Amino acid sequence: MIQPKNGLFIVFEGGDGAGKSTQSARLAQWLASDGYEVRTTFEPGDTQVGAHVRQMVLHSSLDLCPRAEALLYAVDKAQHVAEVIKPSLDARMIVICDRYVDSTIAYQGAGRSLSIDEISKIAWWSVSDLVPDLTILMDVSVTEGLSTKDEHDRMESAGPEFHERVRDHFLELASSGPGRYLVINGRDPKDDVTAAIRACVREMIDQGSHALAR
Amino acid sequence: MIQPKNGLFIVFEGGDGAGKSTQSARLAQWLASDGYEVRTTFEPGDTQVGAHVRQMVLHSSLDLCPRAEALLYAVDKAQHVAEVIKPSLDARMIVICDRYVDSTIAYQGAGRSLSIDEISKIAWWSVSDLVPDLTILMDVSVTEGLSTKDEHDRMESAGPEFHERVRDHFLELASSGPGRYLVINGRDPKDDVTAAIRACVREMIDQGSHALAR
Repeated sequence: MIQPKNGLFIVFEGGDGAGKSTQSARLAQWLASDGYEVRTTFEPGDTQVGAHVRQMVLHSSLDLCPRAEALLYAVDKAQHVAEVIKPSLDARMIVICDRYVDSTIAYQGAGRSLSIDEISKIAWWSVSDLVPDLTILMDVSVTEGLSTKDEHDRMESAGPEFHERVRDHFLELASSGPGRYLVINGRDPKDDVTAAIRACVREMIDQGSHALAR
Repeated sequence: MIQPKNGLFIVFEGGDGAGKSTQSARLAQWLASDGYEVRTTFEPGDTQVGAHVRQMVLHSSLDLCPRAEALLYAVDKAQHVAEVIKPSLDARMIVICDRYVDSTIAYQGAGRSLSIDEISKIAWWSVSDLVPDLTILMDVSVTEGLSTKDEHDRMESAGPEFHERVRDHFLELASSGPGRYLVINGRDPKDDVTAAIRACVREMIDQGSHALAR
């Protein structure tokens, strides 16, 4: 099991086109300019193992069965936590991660081949139950989200009903999942969103339960 | 979950050098010559997905964390059952598989990074709880088994204490695992072993609970 940590673990979640990239980059820059050591990362794929996995899952012609697909995402998560997230938190850094367990549950759960409960168990096991200190859910309607993206991979080429289910899962997790959540309306003005995120993160840092490196 | 099946699912387990390959080939040939449709297969690696996994686990320089490694083996198993084993059993074939869930538990359990209980849960989930009709454990002392093999991969290059634990796990599973077991002394004369295996399989076929294709 994961040991107590001194860093701060912040995750951005939500469908594509909701502004995750913009806001996470702004947050990282703001924290770095304030002197904190920041590690930005993402799932799936931000390790050598994860790159293999990402290639197998998203873009290859392999006809993965539902369990194999779920387990492959779990491989990525396990390695990502062990190799990147946990060591960074142990070094008292602020880790900002684009997608984490909630994405796994929301997307795979929307696929309906496996139960949410089964997916959830495998995903949390893979990350040794490492819960983010803060999950920022960038919520946006499916129509608005998809229209802002040109790039298509296997997930994104699914129909709007699929993405509606994904969105519902994210919102459900935000109301019932472990850890703290900040739900953002992805259509709010960008600067307002940035300010809301900063206020929330500032409050967490000021609470002083983390011994952050700077 | 896996549906009831009409085929017969036979697994060979045990350390390297115990005679699995020889005996499974003999059994397959005998059954085929008797008119049965036989599918021989193995883990890890007997699917396109499994070949990727095998490469990642056994021979690459990837520094896999224990959970990622366990989950990768589970990916192989999930795809193997969905793509090879289950369809063959549904087609009323006799499936003869070189290594299955017990190998996963015995080898990963011997690694001591994860508990047997955790490894077991993931492995059985990956195969949708598909229990073999018969598991033939080729048991051999570690010294004798290793001396017959020249080839070395990551597993085989572990020390003798590791392989002693593997052997203990196999024997423990044979006495407590689900399904029927036939434990063979791998140092018995080859022809005696072949005869013992044939007698056991013949009895299972004659029991008539399987509707085998021939």
